[in-house]
Amino acid sequence: MFDRVWLHANLATMEGEGLGLLEDGAVAAKDGRIAWVGPRAALPGPAAETVDCGGAWILPGLIDCHTHLVFGGDRAEEFERRLAGEDYAAILKSGGGILSTMRATRAADEDALLAAALPRAEALMAEGVTTIEIKSGYGLDLETELRQLRAARRLGAALPVSVVTTLLAAHAVPPEYSGRRADYARHVAEHIVPAAAEAGLADAVDVFHDVIAFDDAETALVLEAARRAGRPVKLHGDQHADAGSAALGARHGVLSVDHLEHANAAGLAAMAAAGSVAVLLPSATYFLREAARPDIAAMRAAGLRMAVATDCNPGSSPALSLLLMLNMACTLYRLTVAEALRGVTVHAAAALGLADRGRLAPGLRCDLALYRIARPAELCYWMGRNPCIGRVVEGR
Amino acid sequence: MFDRVWLHANLATMEGEGLGLLEDGAVAAKDGRIAWVGPRAALPGPAAETVDCGGAWILPGLIDCHTHLVFGGDRAEEFERRLAGEDYAAILKSGGGILSTMRATRAADEDALLAAALPRAEALMAEGVTTIEIKSGYGLDLETELRQLRAARRLGAALPVSVVTTLLAAHAVPPEYSGRRADYARHVAEHIVPAAAEAGLADAVDVFHDVIAFDDAETALVLEAARRAGRPVKLHGDQHADAGSAALGARHGVLSVDHLEHANAAGLAAMAAAGSVAVLLPSATYFLREAARPDIAAMRAAGLRMAVATDCNPGSSPALSLLLMLNMACTLYRLTVAEALRGVTVHAAAALGLADRGRLAPGLRCDLALYRIARPAELCYWMGRNPCIGRVVEGR
Ligand SMILES: [Zn+2]
Ligand SMILES: [Zn+2]
Repeated sequence: MFDRVWLHANLATMEGEGLGLLEDGAVAAKDGRIAWVGPRAALPGPAAETVDCGGAWILPGLIDCHTHLVFGGDRAEEFERRLAGEDYAAILKSGGGILSTMRATRAADEDALLAAALPRAEALMAEGVTTIEIKSGYGLDLETELRQLRAARRLGAALPVSVVTTLLAAHAVPPEYSGRRADYARHVAEHIVPAAAEAGLADAVDVFHDVIAFDDAETALVLEAARRAGRPVKLHGDQHADAGSAALGARHGVLSVDHLEHANAAGLAAMAAAGSVAVLLPSATYFLREAARPDIAAMRAAGLRMAVATDCNPGSSPALSLLLMLNMACTLYRLTVAEALRGVTVHAAAALGLADRGRLAPGLRCDLALYRIARPAELCYWMGRNPCIGRVVEGR
Repeated sequence: MFDRVWLHANLATMEGEGLGLLEDGAVAAKDGRIAWVGPRAALPGPAAETVDCGGAWILPGLIDCHTHLVFGGDRAEEFERRLAGEDYAAILKSGGGILSTMRATRAADEDALLAAALPRAEALMAEGVTTIEIKSGYGLDLETELRQLRAARRLGAALPVSVVTTLLAAHAVPPEYSGRRADYARHVAEHIVPAAAEAGLADAVDVFHDVIAFDDAETALVLEAARRAGRPVKLHGDQHADAGSAALGARHGVLSVDHLEHANAAGLAAMAAAGSVAVLLPSATYFLREAARPDIAAMRAAGLRMAVATDCNPGSSPALSLLLMLNMACTLYRLTVAEALRGVTVHAAAALGLADRGRLAPGLRCDLALYRIARPAELCYWMGRNPCIGRVVEGR
């Protein structure tokens, strides 16, 4: 007997190449997993509990595969000052920019970091998100990086959401290492990566590889340390210029390279061959008013899987709506509806190395999102409308 | 004795030139109006009921001064087809575009139009909106235009929100008048405007004046009919090219010209001199991926008041978040935080010709929006976060 079945629903299973549409379908759960998916008329057995969805749509629970959700302070005041015409260099000089978030994060204890992140996670969850990746990267020292990751773990324990943690100590160079970027990369590789892995706090390791950030050799140091610690890797790459991040990521077998606004076609093809995922972050393009767009045509030609995420962070993307990211991916990058929706489900799972979610298929986690819509395209079409009427995590 | 007071709040009164900030303030209501506003310590008298806001911010209830909220169908499928590469001409030929919304609206009865609009209004209200302007313009015949306006009036009666109606019969040319645009404008002026005014259904009259829409003479016909009927007027103008809408609007003493992406500086100065308001609709710029931006510098130089609205409509702006519009106005048009927030309060009221709301001042309607934020800039900074914790309409 099933624990629970959902009936009178239209399903977007994400099986196959497109949305995997199944009208008037049913989903059955047993022990937190999907036990059966198919046409309602073919449902094989009874269930302890039946949910009539009244014609709603069911998608796999959405996955936000790239966020910096745990941080101290915010940068609303900096935003206001820049709009008022203040020079960015002057703002940096007076303590603004990423180092202001670093200071606020270092000054916050674990409870404060958790308390600030909770409503952010709840905003994402309210739209049907059931898995959130959370990066560190605002501590830039061993103690604070681990504190961010512990807060992320506690967030996953406190809320009905699955949290995946990523160590991003190589996000920027802290003031203690000013002018000694390579030394900091070595410190990350030799001390922070092993400690985070040892403590079970980092499900993956990420590096900001860019012409304005860590170079090839520094990036390789950190990625190799992650390999030694048995952790999968990913990159922030090719955001501000073509830094060769796509090809570098492919050589290192990364789960994903994220941003890619300036990536070249050969690098993207190498990523596809390596099985990496391209994570698109359209709200950063929007918020920073960048003209460059990722080369979607080259990604399609290479058969590269594309994910879509919020990049929620206080500096370049204060975004807390994954549905809005669907609209931005379609509007700004011209993704199709199917590409966008696969980007927050099956391909987002792949970007996190998770084989147990992102589709509606037997054996996977029973993470579902229910929407009162007439067709899945509505999830991409509206801006600022939340038609989510239910969320299920591990069958509950 | 006051009916109700709100204490321990920070106020953005919108009095004076900026946000009119008042920390640790209080607002008192009597008979649905604001009876007193000032520092908490100076609150003059007792109240039947006291609300402790716990440090929240209070703004005047937000005003969405330009929406097309009442319509049949949606265009999500058209959105999907265009992203899939289908030619827009082919989509139009197969019945897409504004005329598909006209057909769906004509086919919907008043109850159906109301039912479709209710959740849209509720989405706006959830962010602190207390006044919504709603245009007709998808009927394009007497009967359906009035039906749209009646549905809008019923929406205002059904929900705790103030609805202002605008007749926009001159939105497009219906198929019955194909090739006879001037005849349709005459029909609107001679029949639809008087009937809507007579029935008390049109608080104002609007015309889509553009190189692809109604020309100067046709627009003047409709505006003059509105004057005869005692209704104030406004324009959709200068959206797709410099059509001289700003200057035309100024000559006609319009409440507002809306869009203005291509307006020239002389026209904007004429609007300022005429006391008209510029209504900015940044999500249409975003959704249509237009390069042109309204000339904000010229508006500032002229002292022209700027409002900000969603333009919610199924074709060019399926937007249901006025807070997101604040972000878009700041990000895409570089409005300051104070300009954006005045644009959804005091200047939005002016765009509707309403002197009784939009600020926190004695004698005005007690329409309030309460937010859990540290500073008003947060309302512009976040994308997809709703910190609204309370809404008050006429003191309740
Ligand atoms: Zn990021
Ligand atoms: Zn409009």
